[in-house]
Amino acid sequence: MSTSTETSTETHAVVTNEFDRDTAVTLREPGVYDADLSAGWTIIHAVNGGYLLALLGRALGHHLPHPDPFTISAHYLTPSVPGPAVIRTETVRTGRTLSTGQASLFQYAEDGTEVERIRVLASYGDLDALPDDVRTSATPPAMAPIENCFGASDGPTPQIPGSSAITERLDIRLDPACVGWAIGAPSGKGEMRAWFGLADGREPDALSLLLTVDALPPTSFELGLKGWTPTVELTTHVRCRPAPGPLRVSITTRNLAGGFLEEDAEVWDSADRLVAQSRQLARAPRG
Amino acid sequence: MSTSTETSTETHAVVTNEFDRDTAVTLREPGVYDADLSAGWTIIHAVNGGYLLALLGRALGHHLPHPDPFTISAHYLTPSVPGPAVIRTETVRTGRTLSTGQASLFQYAEDGTEVERIRVLASYGDLDALPDDVRTSATPPAMAPIENCFGASDGPTPQIPGSSAITERLDIRLDPACVGWAIGAPSGKGEMRAWFGLADGREPDALSLLLTVDALPPTSFELGLKGWTPTVELTTHVRCRPAPGPLRVSITTRNLAGGFLEEDAEVWDSADRLVAQSRQLARAPRG
Repeated sequence: MSTSTETSTETHAVVTNEFDRDTAVTLREPGVYDADLSAGWTIIHAVNGGYLLALLGRALGHHLPHPDPFTISAHYLTPSVPGPAVIRTETVRTGRTLSTGQASLFQYAEDGTEVERIRVLASYGDLDALPDDVRTSATPPAMAPIENCFGASDGPTPQIPGSSAITERLDIRLDPACVGWAIGAPSGKGEMRAWFGLADGREPDALSLLLTVDALPPTSFELGLKGWTPTVELTTHVRCRPAPGPLRVSITTRNLAGGFLEEDAEVWDSADRLVAQSRQLARAPRG
Repeated sequence: MSTSTETSTETHAVVTNEFDRDTAVTLREPGVYDADLSAGWTIIHAVNGGYLLALLGRALGHHLPHPDPFTISAHYLTPSVPGPAVIRTETVRTGRTLSTGQASLFQYAEDGTEVERIRVLASYGDLDALPDDVRTSATPPAMAPIENCFGASDGPTPQIPGSSAITERLDIRLDPACVGWAIGAPSGKGEMRAWFGLADGREPDALSLLLTVDALPPTSFELGLKGWTPTVELTTHVRCRPAPGPLRVSITTRNLAGGFLEEDAEVWDSADRLVAQSRQLARAPRG
């Protein structure tokens, strides 16, 4: 029946973009959500940390009385793998304009016991309730026009070594000044800049920004280091609901020392607003 | 007896500097620490958020197998007041080089129930175990020599309005470029820079850096805003054990928007090393 099929399609359309489909969570009981970590968001074998943060962020946004993550701090404990997971949330405090919650994502050991992967503390609010005042001295990153930037399928292919399923989910166009690493000529600067979108055209929102801040190649590549940069802790501030259209992401590392480095990310929307700021502490690659 | 008195003095000397005395915690049972929030670290009536963080940091450093906070994220829930408090800690994960813990500071309502003030998630390590590699592009903040900077007792008195006991605990010398607010002529820039020490000469360490990142007047003063800037969340990375001597602290706000602002702090030691980085999300003053 044609009508029935259309209705079914419409119903599914809400969740058939890749991001919303793969960050869906199912309420098991109050505060407890089942999830399935998709193999589609992996870098080599590791599940992307921003994707995981978005899953936790979605569960907290459902559990808390406020919808949007204003500040969310994640400590990464053990490596996640594709497959089933459970997210346990807790309301820490509720207030008029902000509420604070905690959430942990667990996966299952072979004997069925839960192994904690990530723990987050977050304060949520309502971005639509904020006043319009903007007094910022921040300016968008200097970035080449998107048509001059390099995507995964372009000339000097800036791909993360190994097979990375996540590259098919994302439309990342790296600024030409930050692709030297892909041809063996890293700039030596701790900078990575790119235009960012979801490959299927799903527009950005507060939740997808949690993915965006941790989706670019690591700055360590442009510092001439190869190998993995595992996140210890990642804190993201969502400052404004993003307008539709491509985002600009700028990531900077200033201090690589003692085997650790920080990555500061800024995300700007198509209306030239600073929509998210994040900082992470990561282990530096040995290479 | 002279010898006995000397011994007693020596014993007390370990805890008679103001910072260690006032951030002391007493083990009540495994994971639970009693504390007393000192009125000596208040700004008007509010207990300083960095002082509170140091208390939580001390309890976690005792509870976890690693001594030093590498990254500690604090969400501030309700205003603390001078008086008794209890800190409850939890080991989240222990690893070879890092361990992760959680802690909450509670105070007591009139009926004796515990009210949570702050909750933190933190990953601890051992700063002495880090390699010496430093590849940083960060440079110390441009700062006037300490003798040209302004302390609480100097000419154009840069004091926080109201009676602030904490000013007697700290030796803060503000850069002349950042004291306009004190004479009604704020620079309009979201910048605050100062030399920092503890007034009684207690040298900096990893724990006292948790105080240092939140001890300067808020950048909002130089943006021409008066009133309070309550912290929602503060994350601090301790990157290096500080050398003895005065610290330099630089705090920057780039984005004041929607009633919130971020404050990014950097702390440099006398050996020109970047010893701590922090970022907080705070509510902007209305004024």
